[in-house]
Parts: sequence; C-alpha cells; structure tokens
Amino acid sequence: MKLKGYIGKVLHIDLTHSKGRVEDLKEDWADQFIGGSGLGTKYLYEMTDERTNPLGPENLLIFMTGPFTGTSVPLSGRHAVVSRSPLTGIFGESDVGGTWGANLKKAGFDGIIVTGKSEKPTYLWVHDGAWEIRDASHLWGKDTYEIDPILKSETHEKAAASAIGQAGENQVLISSIMTDGRDGRAAGRCGMGAVMGSKNLKAIVACGTGNVSVFDTESVKQLPKEYSQRIIQNGGNFKNYGTAGALSTFEAMGTLPLQNWKFVGRWEESAEKINGFTMAETILKGRFFCDACLLGCGRRIKLEKGPYAGVDGAGPEYETLALLGSNCLIDDLEALCFANELCNRFGLDTISTGGVIAFAMEAFEKGLIDRKDTGGIDLRWGSVEALIEMIKMIAWKKGLGELLGKGIKKASEGIGKNSSEFAMHIKGLEMPAHDPRGYNAGGVGFATSSRGACHLAGLSHTFERVLKAPEIGIPEPLDRFQVEGKGILAAKTQNLMGMMDSLKLCKFILFAGVTISDIVKWYKYVTGKEMAFDDFAKTGERIFNLKRLYNVRLGISRKDDFLPPRFLTFKRVGKGLTPNLPPFGQMLSEYYEYRGWSEDGIPIPEKLKELGLLK
Amino acid sequence: MKLKGYIGKVLHIDLTHSKGRVEDLKEDWADQFIGGSGLGTKYLYEMTDERTNPLGPENLLIFMTGPFTGTSVPLSGRHAVVSRSPLTGIFGESDVGGTWGANLKKAGFDGIIVTGKSEKPTYLWVHDGAWEIRDASHLWGKDTYEIDPILKSETHEKAAASAIGQAGENQVLISSIMTDGRDGRAAGRCGMGAVMGSKNLKAIVACGTGNVSVFDTESVKQLPKEYSQRIIQNGGNFKNYGTAGALSTFEAMGTLPLQNWKFVGRWEESAEKINGFTMAETILKGRFFCDACLLGCGRRIKLEKGPYAGVDGAGPEYETLALLGSNCLIDDLEALCFANELCNRFGLDTISTGGVIAFAMEAFEKGLIDRKDTGGIDLRWGSVEALIEMIKMIAWKKGLGELLGKGIKKASEGIGKNSSEFAMHIKGLEMPAHDPRGYNAGGVGFATSSRGACHLAGLSHTFERVLKAPEIGIPEPLDRFQVEGKGILAAKTQNLMGMMDSLKLCKFILFAGVTISDIVKWYKYVTGKEMAFDDFAKTGERIFNLKRLYNVRLGISRKDDFLPPRFLTFKRVGKGLTPNLPPFGQMLSEYYEYRGWSEDGIPIPEKLKELGLLK
Repeated sequence: MKLKGYIGKVLHIDLTHSKGRVEDLKEDWADQFIGGSGLGTKYLYEMTDERTNPLGPENLLIFMTGPFTGTSVPLSGRHAVVSRSPLTGIFGESDVGGTWGANLKKAGFDGIIVTGKSEKPTYLWVHDGAWEIRDASHLWGKDTYEIDPILKSETHEKAAASAIGQAGENQVLISSIMTDGRDGRAAGRCGMGAVMGSKNLKAIVACGTGNVSVFDTESVKQLPKEYSQRIIQNGGNFKNYGTAGALSTFEAMGTLPLQNWKFVGRWEESAEKINGFTMAETILKGRFFCDACLLGCGRRIKLEKGPYAGVDGAGPEYETLALLGSNCLIDDLEALCFANELCNRFGLDTISTGGVIAFAMEAFEKGLIDRKDTGGIDLRWGSVEALIEMIKMIAWKKGLGELLGKGIKKASEGIGKNSSEFAMHIKGLEMPAHDPRGYNAGGVGFATSSRGACHLAGLSHTFERVLKAPEIGIPEPLDRFQVEGKGILAAKTQNLMGMMDSLKLCKFILFAGVTISDIVKWYKYVTGKEMAFDDFAKTGERIFNLKRLYNVRLGISRKDDFLPPRFLTFKRVGKGLTPNLPPFGQMLSEYYEYRGWSEDGIPIPEKLKELGLLK
Repeated sequence: MKLKGYIGKVLHIDLTHSKGRVEDLKEDWADQFIGGSGLGTKYLYEMTDERTNPLGPENLLIFMTGPFTGTSVPLSGRHAVVSRSPLTGIFGESDVGGTWGANLKKAGFDGIIVTGKSEKPTYLWVHDGAWEIRDASHLWGKDTYEIDPILKSETHEKAAASAIGQAGENQVLISSIMTDGRDGRAAGRCGMGAVMGSKNLKAIVACGTGNVSVFDTESVKQLPKEYSQRIIQNGGNFKNYGTAGALSTFEAMGTLPLQNWKFVGRWEESAEKINGFTMAETILKGRFFCDACLLGCGRRIKLEKGPYAGVDGAGPEYETLALLGSNCLIDDLEALCFANELCNRFGLDTISTGGVIAFAMEAFEKGLIDRKDTGGIDLRWGSVEALIEMIKMIAWKKGLGELLGKGIKKASEGIGKNSSEFAMHIKGLEMPAHDPRGYNAGGVGFATSSRGACHLAGLSHTFERVLKAPEIGIPEPLDRFQVEGKGILAAKTQNLMGMMDSLKLCKFILFAGVTISDIVKWYKYVTGKEMAFDDFAKTGERIFNLKRLYNVRLGISRKDDFLPPRFLTFKRVGKGLTPNLPPFGQMLSEYYEYRGWSEDGIPIPEKLKELGLLK
C-alpha cells in the first residue's frame, strides 16, 4: 500500500466454510472512495448484485474504517457498517463511533467483509494481524451488556466488541450492532444487526497494539493539542449536555417529533423534563469518549433508586429521547433511560423502534388495532408500560412485536386500513427526529438519502441553522424556510458528509469550529495527498452517486424520493412556530438538476463519466 | 309548496317491501339546499348514517332534480344521483344530463329516493304522478342500448330511462347509471350503478306531460330566444366539436393525461388523431341535446366499416378519449369509439375504467402482474386489444377484471408491491383528465372535492384559463402556475359549482357567455326569490360544507385531501411546457383558512352556525 493512513489489508471471512483470507486493500478503490462508507459501498457494489438476499448467506456485512480511524486526528474514532438492508431492501449503512474501529485498524486491518452463514453461533476474534472464528453458543441469547465482559475475559481486557443482542439473533429487521458494551455506541440503522444474526455471528472482537502509519507523523501527533482548545470551546454543549442539549431548542423550533408527528402545538414543559440539561443536573454520572475524541458527548448514567434502579451505562441520545420519548408523548426521563438501555441490550435501533411504536400507538388510537392485537396492552400515547412491553415484544418477535419489528412500512402493509397515511418512513427507513416542515433542505436531504429517511447522510438541516462550509460553496447557513437553493444545499451537504463518513470523522467536529480547510490539511498530514476543495467535494459526490447507482440497480428512482404526506400537508402551529409546508417537488427538481441526474432521478452517463464511475 | 320551480313531491320507493309513498318536498331544505346535488345531499345526510353499507339495502339511491330542471331555462336538462359510494366508501354523487330529469319532473316528482332491495330484478315506471314497480327479469343481463327500446315499448315512446348495464348488475364498483339509451349520458362516477344493481333495480323509466310552474312564466319562456345567440356564439366549440374540441389544446398545455400520468413529453400527433376536430371531420353523424340545451355538445357517431363497424350512438367525450385513450397511449379514434360504446352498454364509468386499466398497464410493465394474472392478455401500453378485453373482464368480473372493477385504490391494495406509488386516485376515486401539475388551483380543487378526484365539483382549473365570475370575487382567470390565491380560488369555485349542480345548470353555460348575474336573474324568474351574489355564494358554501360534514362523519380529514405523489414530484417536460410541481400544502392551508375550517380540515362550529348547519 503506497497511500499512508491505511493498513492496506482487508479481512474476508466466509462463515459458511469457516474460512478467512487476508487481501490487500484495493488501492485504486481507496483512492476513489477514501474509506469507511465510500469504500464499503464500493466493495458492496462490486461484490453483490440485485439478486442478493439481505438475510441470505450471500449478503456481505462490511465493516470498514477510514484513513483517519485509529490515528490521533481529533474525533476520528469511527467506522462504517455497510450491507444490503433487510429492513429497506436497498442500500444499507450505519456509521458508528466507539473504540472498535481504531482497535480493528491497530489489529492490522482496514476492514472486515463477512459473507456466508455459520452453522452454529460464532464470534470472530481479530488481533494483531490474526483472526479466529470461535464458538459463541454460550453467548447466544445474552444481551450486549452481558456478553461484553465475557468477551473481554475470553480475549483481551482492552478488546472492543461489535455485537448483537437478542434482537439481532432473532433477525428483527430494526436491530442494531452495538459496540463497547455499556458505553454503547450503535450501528443502529437499516437492520445491520439482523444481517449479523442471519450469519449466526454474535460478535466481532478486536484488539490491536499496532500503529497506523501516516505521512506526517509529527503533525498528526500534534493535532489534539493544536485543536483541543478550539474544539472544546466551540463544542462545549456536546461536552456538557450531550446530543440532547438541543432538545428544547428543537422543541421551540417546531422540529422535535411529537406524537408520531401529528401533534402540532408546543410541548415545552415536557421537553424540559427530558432534555440534556435536566439529564446533566439529575442522573449524569460521567461521560464516555470514542477513540480520539476530545468532547465526550457520551452520557454515562446510573439510576440508583426508583422503579428503574439498576440502569447503568450509556444514557439516551437526542434521537432516542425524541423517538421513544416525545414521539410517543412520553416525558419520563428515567423511564426513557430504562427503555434506552433495553434497546441497547437487545440491540434495537432506538430511532426505528420509537418510530414504529409511535406508529402502532396511532393505529391503536384510530382503532385499526386493538387489545386483541396487542396482547392486552393498552397501547396509548404516553404509556411507559406500553413502550417497555412493546420493546420486549419486538426484540422477542412476540405477538404484535413480530410485525412491528419489521419496521413501519411492512407494519403498515400488514395492518392495512389506510394506515400508510401515518407511516412515517422514507424508502422503508423510519424518520429521524428532525421535522422536515422545519427544514426545507432537510426534507430534500431526507428524501434523497441513499438509505432512506436519514439525517446524517447530508446533515442538510444543520446548514439551515448553524453550519456553513464556504470552501465548498456554502458561505452561510440558509434560512430554514427559504425554498430556492435548498435542493442545491442538500446535494452539497450530502457530498460533504460522504467525505466525513469515508475519512471517518465525527460530524460534530463541524460544530466545534473545525473547517473543511482543516480537514483537507489533516488529509494531507495523514495520506500525504493534496486535495483541492473541488476534489474534496467531487470525491464526496462520487461516493454519493455510487450509492445511488446501487439503489438504481434495485429499482430506486424519483418515485422513491418522497416525504411522508403528513409533512407536506399538515402544518405545525403553536406559539412562536412558523407553520411551513415544504414545496417539495420544486426543491427536488432543483436537486436533480444540480446533481446532473435525469428527471427520473437517475445519474446520467455524462455525470458518471465525469465522476469516473463509467469508463 | 310555496316556492315556484318545484313540483313539491318526492317519491320514496322501498324495494324490499315493493312499496312507495309520495311525500311533500321539504320546503325548508329546498330553501337551504336548492335542489339536485345540494338537496340530494341533505336527504342522504339526514336519512343515513356512518353505519350505512353502500351496497346494503339500507343505502339510499337518490335521484334529484333542481328548480331549473324541466323549465325552459337554457341548459337545465340535468339531475343528480346521490348515495354513499361503494367505490370510495364516502360521499358519492354523479351529475348527469339527458332528458330523464325533465321527464321526471314533468311526471310529477322533484326526486326519487330508493331504498331496500327487490327480491327479483325490477324496474320502476314513473308517469304523471303515478308509479309502478315492474318485473325486469327479461331485461337482466342486457346492456343499456338493448333495453332502451324495450323499455320504451313497454311504457311510452317518449319515456326516458335511467338504467344500468351488466356492470351495475354485477355490482362492479366503477359502474355507472346511463340515461337516454344510445344518446347516452352517464351518471358515471362513484359507482352509482353498483348501488342500483345491489337493489336489483335495472331501470327507472320516466315520462311526463306535466308542467313545471314557475314564478314569471313569460320571462322564463323567453329565455331560450333571449340567450340563444349569445350562447351559440360563445359556445360554438362545444356545438361544433363537443367536449373533445379542446383535447389538443390540453395536450399543448401539458394537462392531458399520458400513460397513467407518467409520460411527460409531448403527444401532439396522436392527440390530433383523436381530438374533436378529427371526430367532426370523419365519423360524426350528428349531435344530440340534453333537455333545454341550445348547444348540443353530444356527438352522434356511426362506424359503417372497418373493424368496429356497427358502433352507433354517443361518441366519446373528452374525458373518455383521454382516459381510455391517451392515458393508455391509444390513439386509434375508431377503437376508442368502440371502447366507449362498450362502456356505455355495460354501464361503466369511462374515467375510472380508463384510469384503472392504465394503472394495470403500468403494473404489467413493471412486472408486478404478468400474463398469468391477465389471463394471457399482453397488457401493454397502446394495445387496443388489451383495452377492449379488460373492459369486458371488468364488466363481467372475470379474472383480473374483478379486482380492477373495484377501482385503483383497492386494485393497488390487492396487487401490493408498492403499486400504490402509481395509483392515481384521490379518496378512492380515479383522476379525471386534467393534470394538476398544469393547474395549481385545480390540484387543490381535486384534492378537496367531496367525492374524491373530481374536476366538476369546482371546475377550478377552468378559472385558471378562461372563466371568471366577478360577482363572487373572481374578476379574472388567474395564471395557472401562480400559487397565492389558489386555495381561495378553489373554494370559491366549489361554492359556485355547488349552486350550478343544485339549480341544475350545465356548467358549459359559463363558457357560453352566461354570467352569475344572468343565473341569479333566472333564479328570480323561476322561483320568485331575490338572491344577492353573497347569498348565492353562501348557499353554495352551505352545500359544500354539508358534503364535508357527511365525509367528516366517515372519518375524512386533512389526511385525505391529498394528490397522488406523482403530481407533486414528477415534472412534465417537453417543448413549450412549463414544468410545474404544485406546492400543495401551502395552497391547501390557504384553502382551509378561507373555508374557516380547522387545521385538520374540519368545519368549525362558528362556520357551521354561520351557514345554518348548526343551531
């Protein structure tokens, strides 16, 4: 491997035959698709096709780091999980923090590509250039908190595990892959846990003592010191209050989901009960950090008394509090901590889980399902009991939980009776907690994200509030309710985030005063390669287009780039709110035009040639 | 009855008990709801509830004339059919011309309300204040063209019949009630034929020699002479080329449906092959007139040679040519005449039939259904054979036809596989042939029409092109692509059309130089009542709100006031076309605000009190 910042090795594991082999990282692919999300997509695109069954042994489960992972580049402790999603049937990926990615790289691999299916439950142990497929029968049926110390005791005390809970074992389609045990970070979205479960793979444990060779070792080493003050000063909210620090701000902006997105007034006092400030003042015991992080937005909490005593570990993120909480009209913080821990232990995506339970609550309210369907549970808004029971039923595929565990789209098909009207998903993926009625570019971004309703693929909505990126043509945040230019903004930010997800940088770094200029400089330090701002954006564009091509192969086109009708027709009103309904089609057209895609949302050959995706 | 213009009698027929009774027309209801559509709605609203099964004996099938029907008011030869629709499950009505309404009134009744279910096929014979329930066993299984002369021979040579064909007998949900035999006028929409079929009622034959007493006999008598020149001069296109006269204009405007609304280019040459000019130059043999009509837009055609020789009677309307034709990419005029006659004979709504066949063609193209489903038919775009076979299969409920005959909404639920993406209906009623991408107010109008996708409830789109009504606040047509004011325009035109449908006036009179001032004058001549322009609009508003209340009782709200996503996201492009995607939510909000409805689309008590709908 000539490029610095990479190990140059990818581990291919075939569980059907209990075999593995180490291959050189494809250097030209790394050059074009960088790492993480982009490079993982390239492997998936080339090594699978439209006949690949997401839960079949032929599907690939790809864990991929980026050139920054495992170095001392600030906030680089991340990796990507890429696969065909069993939840949505299309491109699936999940970006996750923690210490696992850095451990993998230090153990001698840029990524692991798992195929096949093991006969018996297994786990994979990767360390210092070696790997082992081990029996996991004793771990099967246990949750992710339980197995973490066992795995450490069987491997190395400093090892990190990516593991599934019972939900993944049961191939629940909204299940996640969790890392780092109680300091849980989730590769939550797209049902990656079910893919892992379908392979009978309980965990991948990694530990490494190696070193990631970079181009300018001294400069990279100095980065934490050089940037720590700037990052901590600018990112203080993340440090002090975690991702939930902005919950009340979002409530006041009218972008917090309420009651399956149908409650359109204010929820001010309830929001205060569950926001990051309240958490910091009450139950917060400490923080935890991903590898190379300077902020430590991870909340470590412990409940020592009350009905949920015993909760001990990662506290709920903003998305979790919003989807399990406000979206179900629940404002009991301790209960939400318990529900969050349940999801983490079972390995359930809290966004999809909260979304589908709120969907079920609305179906219950409307009489489309009743107590016979719920097994006697009074599935009413605001019911903590109902929330907790449904989480268990989903994880165990019991009763109504079996249907809900398939996600909102399939649940609404199962329930029928016009329930699609309030099925809040895009391309089969449940909505994250940012109301597109409050963010015009956000709406276009969610609708066009490759994996479905995703706030991270573009983070477009944050460029309507606080972020800017003048180096790639975003000199200032645009007004949230402005229409013109929002299609373009969504595309530009998706290109940018494609790079962040491939280099492997935490996006919060952009809120912490770090600029694209800094990142390009870091890229030079790590890889030795100069990258002009145009190339930076173009590379992100290439990555985004490759994901689109993967989806086009599966039939995705303009018809799928849509928002749930509720966002297009129901206004949010309430004191201080601007009642906005996005003129969606206009912005989508601007988006396609800027992307150089056809009217039908298909990348045209000229564009693909320009990006080097078509010879 | 004190009011002039009415007979003052309503015939109630209970088919279960073969009984009838004549009741006085409720004078206060006539005062508030005028007649036709409005008065029919009032009877339906008061005499049924949300438990009424549309195809159960308890449903009412209401035939209602207006104060103008049967008088010499120009273009007044119309009546309304009102019922709970078995196609959509909500408010159903169908407005129809011909001579039947005038005959009914001259036979001594303002309307007929049918309930119950006859044991055996029957028909009803109404004449000169008397009525008879007769056996129709010998007519069952025959089409509407066949039975018309038989019915005349059994009753009176000048009698007119409202009858169902085999589709109505088979309770096909998109079946119509046809009047006047070969000079066929259709009460096409909402499956009124199925309601009639469910009651085992084959026909209602009416003949009258009575007189409709009006307030100012002399003035009313003079109206045809007074207005004929103005109407014929201004309405010359309707006279010469029928409703299809504008087909090529609509093609050029980008509002003609093409290929289930997904073909977005131009279709110029094909449109020329099937438009009203071509019809007039080739196969037109004459015109036919509704009662009191001065224009005669009805096309009488006869095909004497070629594969469709034998076609003889009503030629296809614009809606028929567009839905059976361009929407299926068929440009063979003679074949469309044959298909039209088949629909008329069977008693099938050509709009819904064309819509659901185009839907099936797209499902076939996409591989969601195949030849096994179609019974071997190659259901490809542009196939005349496929069109004709599918019409037969729908009428006879054979194979795939059984599912398609339930309309697009149920067909798409039956086919599944995301076919709802191209299910072009609103509230279960198939789209008429006016693209809301080309008419912003039209889109809001369609989405909020009480019976579902309806171009007639507001005719809003024509006020974006040629019509105006300064007396009720529409001084000029508004630009089609303007956004502001379009919600208000849609509401105002719906109020206006509520009056037209209740007085019973053909809407084409507005294209023929007649103004609201004229109509208010005529109302005075007929009834003796002064009506200020404000009262005119307010009465229309009352009627529209009553229909909304009927639907609200059935669960209709903002969630149902929507356009098929294709209209919101897919642009029509092509030479000379303006690629517009309506910012729907904004216009809908303006509409509700103007209507004085809640954010959820429910009329608020204050509004209902103002309209006299709530004491």
